[in-house]
Amino acid sequence: MKENNVIKNESITRQEDDFAQWYTDVCLKAELMDYSDVKGFIIYRPYGYALWENIKNYLDMRFKQTGHENIYMPLVIPESLFNKEKEHVEGFAPETLIATIGGKNKLEDRLIIRPTSEVLFCQHYAKVISSYRDLPKKYNQWCSVVRWEKTTRPFLRGSEFLWQEGHTMHLTEQEARHETLSMLEIYDELGKDILAIPFVKGKKTDKEKFAGALETYSIEALMPDGKALQSGTTHYFGQGFAKAFNVSYQSKEGKLETPYQTSWGVSTRLIGSIIMVHGDDNGLVLPPYVAPIQVVIIPIAQQKPNVLPEARKIYELLTKHNIRVKIDETDKTPGYKFADWEMKGVPLRLEIGPRDIENNRCVLVKRNTQEKIIVNQDDLLNQVDLLLKIIHREMYQKAYQFLLDHITEVHSLDELKQVVDKGGYAKMMWCGDEDCENKIKELTTATARCMPFNQQEFDDVCPICGKKAKKVVLFAKAY
Amino acid sequence: MKENNVIKNESITRQEDDFAQWYTDVCLKAELMDYSDVKGFIIYRPYGYALWENIKNYLDMRFKQTGHENIYMPLVIPESLFNKEKEHVEGFAPETLIATIGGKNKLEDRLIIRPTSEVLFCQHYAKVISSYRDLPKKYNQWCSVVRWEKTTRPFLRGSEFLWQEGHTMHLTEQEARHETLSMLEIYDELGKDILAIPFVKGKKTDKEKFAGALETYSIEALMPDGKALQSGTTHYFGQGFAKAFNVSYQSKEGKLETPYQTSWGVSTRLIGSIIMVHGDDNGLVLPPYVAPIQVVIIPIAQQKPNVLPEARKIYELLTKHNIRVKIDETDKTPGYKFADWEMKGVPLRLEIGPRDIENNRCVLVKRNTQEKIIVNQDDLLNQVDLLLKIIHREMYQKAYQFLLDHITEVHSLDELKQVVDKGGYAKMMWCGDEDCENKIKELTTATARCMPFNQQEFDDVCPICGKKAKKVVLFAKAY
Repeated sequence: MKENNVIKNESITRQEDDFAQWYTDVCLKAELMDYSDVKGFIIYRPYGYALWENIKNYLDMRFKQTGHENIYMPLVIPESLFNKEKEHVEGFAPETLIATIGGKNKLEDRLIIRPTSEVLFCQHYAKVISSYRDLPKKYNQWCSVVRWEKTTRPFLRGSEFLWQEGHTMHLTEQEARHETLSMLEIYDELGKDILAIPFVKGKKTDKEKFAGALETYSIEALMPDGKALQSGTTHYFGQGFAKAFNVSYQSKEGKLETPYQTSWGVSTRLIGSIIMVHGDDNGLVLPPYVAPIQVVIIPIAQQKPNVLPEARKIYELLTKHNIRVKIDETDKTPGYKFADWEMKGVPLRLEIGPRDIENNRCVLVKRNTQEKIIVNQDDLLNQVDLLLKIIHREMYQKAYQFLLDHITEVHSLDELKQVVDKGGYAKMMWCGDEDCENKIKELTTATARCMPFNQQEFDDVCPICGKKAKKVVLFAKAY
Repeated sequence: MKENNVIKNESITRQEDDFAQWYTDVCLKAELMDYSDVKGFIIYRPYGYALWENIKNYLDMRFKQTGHENIYMPLVIPESLFNKEKEHVEGFAPETLIATIGGKNKLEDRLIIRPTSEVLFCQHYAKVISSYRDLPKKYNQWCSVVRWEKTTRPFLRGSEFLWQEGHTMHLTEQEARHETLSMLEIYDELGKDILAIPFVKGKKTDKEKFAGALETYSIEALMPDGKALQSGTTHYFGQGFAKAFNVSYQSKEGKLETPYQTSWGVSTRLIGSIIMVHGDDNGLVLPPYVAPIQVVIIPIAQQKPNVLPEARKIYELLTKHNIRVKIDETDKTPGYKFADWEMKGVPLRLEIGPRDIENNRCVLVKRNTQEKIIVNQDDLLNQVDLLLKIIHREMYQKAYQFLLDHITEVHSLDELKQVVDKGGYAKMMWCGDEDCENKIKELTTATARCMPFNQQEFDDVCPICGKKAKKVVLFAKAY
């Protein structure tokens, strides 16, 4: 059994040596995922899947509170139906997985494994919406989608990933626009409330918006390597899809009208955000309110008579108060256990040994700062509660400061290049023209992440064409 | 708007006229599902999906309480991997959907859309199990699976359906056998606790067991037309799959050993059980603890000044106490609303009008018996709670009595045929030989549903071969 006492996390790459390799190491060593035989189709291991479950629980509650209903659409879309909305097809066709054989027979209409379900929702809405009384319809779906990707990375870009897709139909343009923005707000609050990630929010440029949408909004997270990660989007469709799919309703006045549409989604990509924003050279660092295990109890000298019973008593106490606790009673050394649970990023480690029991205390160690706090057992519950709050706030603040430190106002292409090469957002004004935007990408590999809501315009010209600049944009390299 | 006042449910087929058509009518009219363009791939509408969510919440809690962890495996299985366990392949190959094109290119190893994930779990277990410390591994997956079916019916048999599949690995045969039976027990309790369905539990005959399993157990529900519906199964695999996939571990003593395996699952088929076991000629009748809406409030003369505010006050009160309530404020007539929510099977209807408000009371109507109960508003919460309990118990008792009335002991093939033709279980002893079992199916179209745990053997001979009968079996026609 000696070989198991080797400290596992010595083997992960350091962030500054190779950030990409560090990321992959953490995904595997923290047991978040594993590869399958098919490229881009990963196995979500229990610890990684539990992160998704916690995100899902939060969002599902928020969606239901705001009047949304869950639904489940077929996994497959007939190719003929998929081809109905032109812009949409062009956006997705190159990356589809297509089934051609069913029950040993060749299929006449080939079946596309859903890359997204806009067309299925539209077709269904055409059937179930007929009166103004049927509106709004606010549906959401939790499922996996398939996009045949050439370059894949765990959680960040996969051929299959888990997500939710909301699709809604409304009586008025105003109501649909409100939905588009209020769902973005919920995504932003997900970051603030449980992921400890400050997002930048804003509108996508026309070049970067979703295939078929009139407007796309996004939340963007900034990674420690200075690259942005698009972490969620909401779309306002106007009446385009609805008209293409003949979705219409009879108004109160008896007239035939077309409803206004939105869609919005986040995916398991958020797990990638969590790993990168918070992780360190010892592995994962999980924000307390999304962590599958919030407190891990490590008994010290567990062979001594009182230790395990005392550890279990603490376990019962914390569990009873809805804290997610794990007690590690395995026959590994405490040192091995410390490293193991550090790799897994558990926010609080609780150590309890014979001397602690004698003194009616235990030792708490914060994963994010490695601080040790000795607490009296009588006050344990309050202290744990408080420390989880503090850890969340510290992690959010740290990420927020990093974000603020990496937004730089620039006024030329050279400055922009300097900023994005070093890492971070270059805040720049531009004329609004897609040609100029293309040029910027070509020359710097940075893309327009979003036009922040707070435009804080300054007087400037477009650095490409020299015309009057109209919009403030955050440019960055991106995942 | 006059046409909306026509009572909708006049249009559903009566059970005694055509039970199958009644079933389809209810599925559609109660808005549980809709058809898509692809045969056997249904749309789970919000009301139907919410039933599944409630089943899922119950089971997920039970699974986690008993130490199971959720995981997510890829949607696709390479054909080469799928072909590894022979018996298993033979069971599933005829009904697979196969993807052959990815990102516009022909795939070298074709991809099977998962019909079940045994092989993926086994392959993963081979990677993550190496020491006795890694056992048991108790994983569960919530997902959809695809089986290309020729004859499909909503919820009962689909080309795609939602389910959970548990897959576990254990140190000892005893532990694995215990798991197989204790998961069956949880399924049975699902019926007792929230579906109000009494299942018959037992072991499958060798002929009826799962492809590759050593033993299969099932819960079977009896439908009002006298046919059985297999509603969940658990399997004991022994070491067969584990050996085929090289799953092994080092024991405490340093020896290489093979673990013992189980799997178990229930699916959206359970929704079909709920519809048929409890429904009547007015539509769905939902058991309270699985019903998406437990109480629907219908304001009477809602244009009168006090009515809506009073109805909303009741709504708030019940919601605050975790009762699932809906208030129907639409501009339809009360009569229309009554019929509509009866069709949807809401367990309790609450009527409140000006006269009720004057007398500080409201009217409750039980969906299952149509009884009216007038209650004082001060006692409303207690009464609602109590009535939901009573409705659940009445529905379970009714179904249980029906089950008892439809188990008939028989001693010959003629008797068996008479019983199953009329509808219900024929309880018969048989020699245990598969040839005789085949003969029984051929001559009666009934199949061995299960060998109940309580064997209550009697002295008999096999009605086919005349040899000594060894096992008590429940035969029935089945869905």
